[in-house]
Amino acid sequence: MLESEQVRLDARGGKLNAPTAGLAYGFVQANLVILPASDAMDFLVFCQRNPKPCPLLGVSTPGDTGIARLGENLDIATDLPRYRVWKDGELTEECPDVSHLWRDDLVSFALGCSFSFEEALLEQGLELRHITQGCNVPMYRTNVPTQAAGKFHGPLVVSMRPFKPADAIRAIQVTSRFPDVHGAPVHLGDSTLIGIHDLSKPDYGDAVALKEGEMPVFWACGVTPQSVLMASKPKFCITHAPGYMLMTDLKNAELAVL
Amino acid sequence: MLESEQVRLDARGGKLNAPTAGLAYGFVQANLVILPASDAMDFLVFCQRNPKPCPLLGVSTPGDTGIARLGENLDIATDLPRYRVWKDGELTEECPDVSHLWRDDLVSFALGCSFSFEEALLEQGLELRHITQGCNVPMYRTNVPTQAAGKFHGPLVVSMRPFKPADAIRAIQVTSRFPDVHGAPVHLGDSTLIGIHDLSKPDYGDAVALKEGEMPVFWACGVTPQSVLMASKPKFCITHAPGYMLMTDLKNAELAVL
Repeated sequence: MLESEQVRLDARGGKLNAPTAGLAYGFVQANLVILPASDAMDFLVFCQRNPKPCPLLGVSTPGDTGIARLGENLDIATDLPRYRVWKDGELTEECPDVSHLWRDDLVSFALGCSFSFEEALLEQGLELRHITQGCNVPMYRTNVPTQAAGKFHGPLVVSMRPFKPADAIRAIQVTSRFPDVHGAPVHLGDSTLIGIHDLSKPDYGDAVALKEGEMPVFWACGVTPQSVLMASKPKFCITHAPGYMLMTDLKNAELAVL
Repeated sequence: MLESEQVRLDARGGKLNAPTAGLAYGFVQANLVILPASDAMDFLVFCQRNPKPCPLLGVSTPGDTGIARLGENLDIATDLPRYRVWKDGELTEECPDVSHLWRDDLVSFALGCSFSFEEALLEQGLELRHITQGCNVPMYRTNVPTQAAGKFHGPLVVSMRPFKPADAIRAIQVTSRFPDVHGAPVHLGDSTLIGIHDLSKPDYGDAVALKEGEMPVFWACGVTPQSVLMASKPKFCITHAPGYMLMTDLKNAELAVL
């Protein structure tokens, strides 16, 4: 059995109730958004218009709890260790299973996640400061608007990783190969140009140290869709809980476009 | 006849005595270094150790005035509009032909030039400030040493082009495709980290404006070998005169690695 499938089965059976970072090395983990069909078309268009924060790895048929591309033995309603349930933009519940909430009009969206490109950066010998510091990557709301679609709108959220300039150039090259998991950075250097005025106060995650001679490098972040959902207040929505990702049978290496 | 061959014939016949920028659009122009065989091996190793400033497009057999890869009807000793002759590291002569100085132990090195990647950047719609301003690209000696080989040593020389951060990221992607013509930048952002303390005072070429929100992006520069030759003082050497390049029959697009 693939390691990734084992992770899903552990979550399904209640044996795994922890963040998925570091599990099933080499396999793609995904952000999850589940919406009723009435909102799904707008959200799909939103993803199409904003591929850097919302790179689509897979979309289900309405009512289906599987997405063929992502794995054979995969049940969206049970295979994540923790879910968040949202009503009118408010978080109403966190739970380890959403079978009891399932409806035949629900459409699932699996969106690429930075874990995939971080593996590629680490394999290049690049240091990821938040991993060195043992904390979450710092994330910031920017003043850069996403391209709205229907009710879905809101600012781009970015994650930040500090690098020396030569390493920043290498990181741009490496992540450019992975457009399905946010791809190349959207910004680097002066953070005020995208509306971030204090790097020590991230909106999500934890602050990390910026050392002498380093510059901040910003990638579009998979938290953008969650932020957009909170701002856009669909009647009903399910997402993964932060860090408790959808484990797929795709390999990170498969996502490289060259 | 290829446009590039016509340029060479014009130079050979004395009809062209001007810089080659803008001639034979799409064709590769090269930096030229000619050294006696006694120094050639060290210089070849120097290029191998420093591929970003000294990307080798072709090397001749000793005494030959052709380099097969670069064009059929090509005579290194006559086909550039202007040459520089160096003795013991001192410039002794500029002339439109070096046939009278030819020896059967001379080895010619054709090195990639930024004209090739600038064409690719312009085709992406990126603005090149020195072209907008109608001047030469600014170039700076850095405090970054090259990897020495035999007598050849000296600091890296870089060219600088200012971009907004998103355009800098795009420029890194575009030039990464062209390792044979300097490839990706070597640095961006804070110039003092590579020993450049005043961008308004380039060591070669002309200063260009850095606008609000732009960052300087630095590429390894083909002036590095000339600077190294001046520092290393080989007994005898011939180079192109700055801007009066070797026109080849290679196309810039052919040099893209992907």
